[in-house]
Amino acid sequence: MAGSVADVAGTSSSVVRIGLLGCGNVGAALIGLIAEQADAVELRTGLRLEVTRVAVRNLAKARPVELPEGCLTHDAGGVVDDPEVDVVVELIGGIEPARSLILDAVKSGKPVVTANKELLANVGEELFAAADAAGVDLLFEASVGGAIPVIRPLRESLAGTRVRRVTGIVNGTTNYILTRMSEEGATYGEALAEAQGLGYAERDPTADVDGYDAGAKAAILATIAFGASVVAGDVYHEGISAVTPADIGFAHRLGYEIKLLAVAEAHYDDAGGGGVPEVAVRVHPAMVPADHPLASVRGSFNAVFIEGEAVGELMLYGRGAGGRPTASAVLGDVVDAAGNLRRGTHAPLGLLPRAVIRPIDEMRSEYYLHLEVVDRPGVLHAVSGVFAEHGVSIRSMEQEGLGDEARLIFITHDAAESAVQATLAALRGLDVVDRVTSVLRVVSG
Amino acid sequence: MAGSVADVAGTSSSVVRIGLLGCGNVGAALIGLIAEQADAVELRTGLRLEVTRVAVRNLAKARPVELPEGCLTHDAGGVVDDPEVDVVVELIGGIEPARSLILDAVKSGKPVVTANKELLANVGEELFAAADAAGVDLLFEASVGGAIPVIRPLRESLAGTRVRRVTGIVNGTTNYILTRMSEEGATYGEALAEAQGLGYAERDPTADVDGYDAGAKAAILATIAFGASVVAGDVYHEGISAVTPADIGFAHRLGYEIKLLAVAEAHYDDAGGGGVPEVAVRVHPAMVPADHPLASVRGSFNAVFIEGEAVGELMLYGRGAGGRPTASAVLGDVVDAAGNLRRGTHAPLGLLPRAVIRPIDEMRSEYYLHLEVVDRPGVLHAVSGVFAEHGVSIRSMEQEGLGDEARLIFITHDAAESAVQATLAALRGLDVVDRVTSVLRVVSG
Repeated sequence: MAGSVADVAGTSSSVVRIGLLGCGNVGAALIGLIAEQADAVELRTGLRLEVTRVAVRNLAKARPVELPEGCLTHDAGGVVDDPEVDVVVELIGGIEPARSLILDAVKSGKPVVTANKELLANVGEELFAAADAAGVDLLFEASVGGAIPVIRPLRESLAGTRVRRVTGIVNGTTNYILTRMSEEGATYGEALAEAQGLGYAERDPTADVDGYDAGAKAAILATIAFGASVVAGDVYHEGISAVTPADIGFAHRLGYEIKLLAVAEAHYDDAGGGGVPEVAVRVHPAMVPADHPLASVRGSFNAVFIEGEAVGELMLYGRGAGGRPTASAVLGDVVDAAGNLRRGTHAPLGLLPRAVIRPIDEMRSEYYLHLEVVDRPGVLHAVSGVFAEHGVSIRSMEQEGLGDEARLIFITHDAAESAVQATLAALRGLDVVDRVTSVLRVVSG
Repeated sequence: MAGSVADVAGTSSSVVRIGLLGCGNVGAALIGLIAEQADAVELRTGLRLEVTRVAVRNLAKARPVELPEGCLTHDAGGVVDDPEVDVVVELIGGIEPARSLILDAVKSGKPVVTANKELLANVGEELFAAADAAGVDLLFEASVGGAIPVIRPLRESLAGTRVRRVTGIVNGTTNYILTRMSEEGATYGEALAEAQGLGYAERDPTADVDGYDAGAKAAILATIAFGASVVAGDVYHEGISAVTPADIGFAHRLGYEIKLLAVAEAHYDDAGGGGVPEVAVRVHPAMVPADHPLASVRGSFNAVFIEGEAVGELMLYGRGAGGRPTASAVLGDVVDAAGNLRRGTHAPLGLLPRAVIRPIDEMRSEYYLHLEVVDRPGVLHAVSGVFAEHGVSIRSMEQEGLGDEARLIFITHDAAESAVQATLAALRGLDVVDRVTSVLRVVSG
């Protein structure tokens, strides 16, 4: 580090010089937060944080924060290599050049803090190995759940327990849309348009509504919770665009809310020991019982629900996005990385073998099915026969007449995905079934 | 540490020898958890955890866990001094001898993990200073909220933000009682008897129901959240024994749940900077809006709701008590302390000046007041005049006839505690007021 200055108590503080890659929403908030909090952080930790270099794409763009003269540059590589930079914060997003810049930084002994979920969910294994080999920190609390402490609790607080399952509401856009549908009776299209108007959803909302953003976060959560590397490509996805107001109505009547869940499950083949589990990771809308803690996570809030062997159930809840919340998570990591750098230590992630991924066909769940059928005698008998043939047991059924048609709503008992898919294929082949309108997984109460 | 053994990967692991002081519920669960998790922890961290010495009061007592021969002893001081012990876990509870044992341990360079809230809330300042001076860890995640990661997020994840307020449901016994009253219509006495029957409440329930247990935890939360030492004696207390089914009924009708809250608030006198805030710490029952995340914390669960400048609102939720949940928090700390010991570092708490405590008189809140009055013309006029005289503004009022008497329910706007107390004294002096039945603070929605 740069040297030391005298602090208020007369003892000496270390100056920590931060090189920032990217200065959008989160970067600008981080610069502002460091200006506000530098004195408090110094008092508490003896670390004096200073942003000395900032790499941006557009030098001419007006920015809402003040920076020392000569601080801005086009040259991200130059910031990483600058001997006047102690800690690198990567907020560019995407895979390249972020990957190469981070590899360069850690190889030259500089800790890195990143909020880049896409990068970690795709090439995290390579980056973690490089950081461990170099003996420096690569910290990423802000990559999942914004301001919510999620990564650190999973890495550290839960070191004494085996995590069985992590279930997250980790995408604020889709949770906002589903909350508007649930509370205002909006259609998916209306709620999406509203989210776009408020800037919560992109013009092209695919990454959010089809579950890719949540999927990258699910991969990171699974990796940290189970200690085995899971990548974005391992995650099964279904989005929320097919959820209808009718589904929401039935969910309410049956005592559920519909939420887009990111689920990471570990299947251990022994009662104890250090074995690496088989891992199932998926993102899909699901019916969540109204008295489950995740059901009350509204609007753009996020939450991560953790089930562990000794801890039982935990939930971590808060602001999953936004400049200042995300910047505060980045700053927590910067303080940690800077402290470790001063003490000549780092927090290793440990060995990360590739996870064995359990295919979606082998998952089990309760299911909600919504069928439109011809309304005549014998139809229910024919339909229920198909369930029985495939070994899918029905927990409850409702029938609603719609003139010539009827609507059948089933909730099944716990069943294998493969059996439910076979049941659906057979149902679609029946003359009396007009349409399978919806299929949703149900979280057991 | 003791030396090293070859682990499965062929690299060498460090053996960490744990000396346990106390072997009740949590201690026995910890021994069991270490036996289950030792391989997994070693694989991930290279630390081989072994419980080598256990100090107990009664050597003859049967224990549900297996221990190596000669491991049990009466002599707690001998466990601390034993050169074959690297890390000390204190689970005796109470102030002495726990205090002296911990001071001896840290002075001889041994990190300590404790779950002892009473100790920390009374002499934490002395213990933290001794640990920092000796350069070893004193960790205490299990002291508040059992299995819930609370201390670590406040210390580390939120290093980049200023915490304004921490509001906790941190006593499972009282939350169980209030949940039974809310959901089953039980009286306080019935719900307490039920909690005692289930082992959730002690025969003498004072520490729980009068808020002393929650108060100790509030002092610890305030200390960590605001970086200024707060002790149990600084905490204002009101218990739950005066809460009636009628209050619960009114709360529901008005859209609230009644919860026992531990509240720690910081009042900063500047817009930024490193100043130490004035701190208000209190425990009392309160009406919580039904859509507030704390309202849905049911039964013996705990939760801590954190409001910070940059992070917005966070909530950490889970099992606040029980042998295995608490032991899992202890074990997370043991892994952390052992890793730091091996790396020759520790996590200092930093400077902890004594907090300046703001007296309860100066607190502001909305209030719920329930009066029994004579039912005749002019009474409401007289009563409302008393509120007006003391500058307490009424947000809503309901009147309910009870024969000769009437019941008046007021919710006030935000008002000073001192003004409300003066209002109550004046109301009690009115001929037409038979009784002030209940006064509860109201959390604004």
